[in-house]
Amino acid sequence: MGEKIVENKQIIFKGYIEGAPKETDMELRVGKKIKLEAPKGSGALLVKNLYLSCDPYMRGRMRDYHGSYVPPFLPGSVVEGFGVSKVVHSDNQNYKQGDIVCGFTGWEEYSLIYETEQLRKVKPDDDIPLSYYIGLLGMPGFTAYVGFYEICAPKKNEYVFVSAASGAVGQLVGQLAKLHGCYVVGSAGTSQKVDLLKNKLGFDEAFNYKEEPDLDAALKRYFPQGIDIYFENVGGAMLEAVLLNMRIHGRIAVCGMVSQHGTSDPNGIRNLFNLIPKRIKMQGFLQSDHLELFPRFLEEVGSLYKQGKITYLEDMDEGLESGPSAFAGLFSGKNVGKQVICVAHE
Amino acid sequence: MGEKIVENKQIIFKGYIEGAPKETDMELRVGKKIKLEAPKGSGALLVKNLYLSCDPYMRGRMRDYHGSYVPPFLPGSVVEGFGVSKVVHSDNQNYKQGDIVCGFTGWEEYSLIYETEQLRKVKPDDDIPLSYYIGLLGMPGFTAYVGFYEICAPKKNEYVFVSAASGAVGQLVGQLAKLHGCYVVGSAGTSQKVDLLKNKLGFDEAFNYKEEPDLDAALKRYFPQGIDIYFENVGGAMLEAVLLNMRIHGRIAVCGMVSQHGTSDPNGIRNLFNLIPKRIKMQGFLQSDHLELFPRFLEEVGSLYKQGKITYLEDMDEGLESGPSAFAGLFSGKNVGKQVICVAHE
Ligand SMILES: NC(=O)c1ccc[n+]([C@@H]2O[C@H](COP(=O)([O-])OP(=O)(O)OC[C@H]3O[C@@H](n4cnc5c(N)ncnc54)[C@H](OP(=O)(O)O)[C@@H]3O)[C@@H](O)[C@H]2O)c1
Ligand SMILES: NC(=O)c1ccc[n+]([C@@H]2O[C@H](COP(=O)([O-])OP(=O)(O)OC[C@H]3O[C@@H](n4cnc5c(N)ncnc54)[C@H](OP(=O)(O)O)[C@@H]3O)[C@@H](O)[C@H]2O)c1
Repeated sequence: MGEKIVENKQIIFKGYIEGAPKETDMELRVGKKIKLEAPKGSGALLVKNLYLSCDPYMRGRMRDYHGSYVPPFLPGSVVEGFGVSKVVHSDNQNYKQGDIVCGFTGWEEYSLIYETEQLRKVKPDDDIPLSYYIGLLGMPGFTAYVGFYEICAPKKNEYVFVSAASGAVGQLVGQLAKLHGCYVVGSAGTSQKVDLLKNKLGFDEAFNYKEEPDLDAALKRYFPQGIDIYFENVGGAMLEAVLLNMRIHGRIAVCGMVSQHGTSDPNGIRNLFNLIPKRIKMQGFLQSDHLELFPRFLEEVGSLYKQGKITYLEDMDEGLESGPSAFAGLFSGKNVGKQVICVAHE
Repeated sequence: MGEKIVENKQIIFKGYIEGAPKETDMELRVGKKIKLEAPKGSGALLVKNLYLSCDPYMRGRMRDYHGSYVPPFLPGSVVEGFGVSKVVHSDNQNYKQGDIVCGFTGWEEYSLIYETEQLRKVKPDDDIPLSYYIGLLGMPGFTAYVGFYEICAPKKNEYVFVSAASGAVGQLVGQLAKLHGCYVVGSAGTSQKVDLLKNKLGFDEAFNYKEEPDLDAALKRYFPQGIDIYFENVGGAMLEAVLLNMRIHGRIAVCGMVSQHGTSDPNGIRNLFNLIPKRIKMQGFLQSDHLELFPRFLEEVGSLYKQGKITYLEDMDEGLESGPSAFAGLFSGKNVGKQVICVAHE
């Protein structure tokens, strides 16, 4: 080890944007070199990135706004996100070469990570693909777990609606709801996704919202009794229609509003009056507020997966180069399941 | 007692309406007679109505919609609402002549009440005006109590904003919040009301929303640190501005949206995305879901009032005839404090 210097391909954030992200908002930079060594006394790790995660919240880091819970990306710098990586060299006593770690890393082949407190060591398990640690068993899966159990406060036999249902978060919400004894309907943007929801992910029903000219009518068709729990991933017109179809004492877990990301002209929601006579609780949440539940989540969902009670759809793009288009694809629904970039298989 | 028959003036609901209520949506009917007797075996009470309550929710009963938590009024029938009444004749063993009761009654001089289960007997107390049993110690006061303690989950030193702050509900919310150790700002629609909020009701600050061209800027002025708790009475543009000024983990108790009553074109709320990064809980509620707390409320708020720790503003109109204009006035902000109609002093 030690003196080895290699080329390090990187994905660079070009500059602040308006509207939906495009592939050209990021670019590949080649030619940079990196020493495969964590500086002595730094406590850092030098890692090789294996899988990188494309997540909608990253859109929020592409605008010049410092008041949010994550700071903006720096134009000209490497994109940052969740990843699964392998330790190449460690200056930290808690990690050794060959360890698999999961946490914030760079969109590049190798990264030098100083902030090791935010990392989690992954215990390799032959039955669980490593990439799942940024999906089913990573931030998106944890979001589904926390959002469903903590925010929705579900009861058996309740009627549950999930939007962006085939995505990284939605597909687990629906499966947890089924295991909880709920009736579950999902919406998604293609007939392929609808088919997967019904025939692979075990949703009771699913529909393609793009083919429904009247979302209120669609929801009335699938929920003649109304909706007890809405797991909100998209916002806009869907939320508007859902408010008309909630049941008394219903709960709306506001996880995301992907349709409103980067719109300077968001949909105005006119049906909020329904909150009162229906006594609806509408609650925004961030998974990161609930990290004390992470170990329990890992244990429970990992075990459900190994027992074959849960499946997980991934959309894996090969090569770091695929990052910009894979990321932009989240906002047009190109991804089928959790969007992952495979940088290296090991 | 027994055979006495008297004239019974009444206020009649004329027919279903669109938009804000007008004085002419109701009319006085004279000439009807009533026998001052509860029929034998009926279990009913014949009461003399003393004070009648004007409440915004009654607007909801003036449209032909049966899906809500209260059924619509019947065109041509007597308006119904909360009142304080005196028993003239009782066929019910739980009540006797001279008892003071509070609950649903008719907008008329005398009413025959069959549904006695919904009534509460009032223990006359020289220190408490009888009319308070439809205000401070009635439904509106209870709404403030439940909404503030149960829905807002307040903590000492939190920043609280109340809209329609000088009204029946709002004025108590603000005072309870002050007693709880919060910083409290209210909004109202005239400078007289603003003055009362600051100088009589003990709010830390108050402003006239009609004189603020930019509600967001106004809220930033009064809440440079942001708002922890918003007690929502009005909806529309105010809610929109509040969402921009909520703090992390803020709570919005959605009590009413009086500005949206009867608009066929409600304001679209475009700032709901804020619910997520700020982890805001927005919860609609009805006081009637919490009636198990009513005895505790009566005890606590009654005692605070008697200790002089709480004051209550009433706007009392004399005579049953004043009912229609008093009611319509709620929607233009004519009332200063709780709107009551005095039908008879005893
Ligand atoms: N609160 C938290 O802590 C937290 C954590 C993680 C994620 N989230 C949020 O959860 C949501 C889902 O995230 P995810 O990682 O699971 O993403 P995802 O669902 O895997 O990917 C995004 C999906 O959103 C749908 N979409 C895109 N634009 C849309 C539009 N205009 N209208 C309706 N649907 C649209 C697309 O599916 P279709 O083909 O179905 O349109 C797309 O596949 C996002 O809003 C994200 O911000 C929140
Ligand atoms: N959820 C429940 O269980 C429950 C129970 C009782 C009451 N409520 C609700 O609580 C709210 C307050 O009721 P309340 O009895 O205390 O009434 P109130 O405040 O005594 O009277 C209504 C007041 O609303 C204000 N207002 C009217 N139109 C407005 C508009 N377009 N924009 C802004 N403000 C307007 C006026 O004051 P300004 O001069 O300040 O404009 C008016 O005085 C209402 O929304 C009511 O429906 C809910």
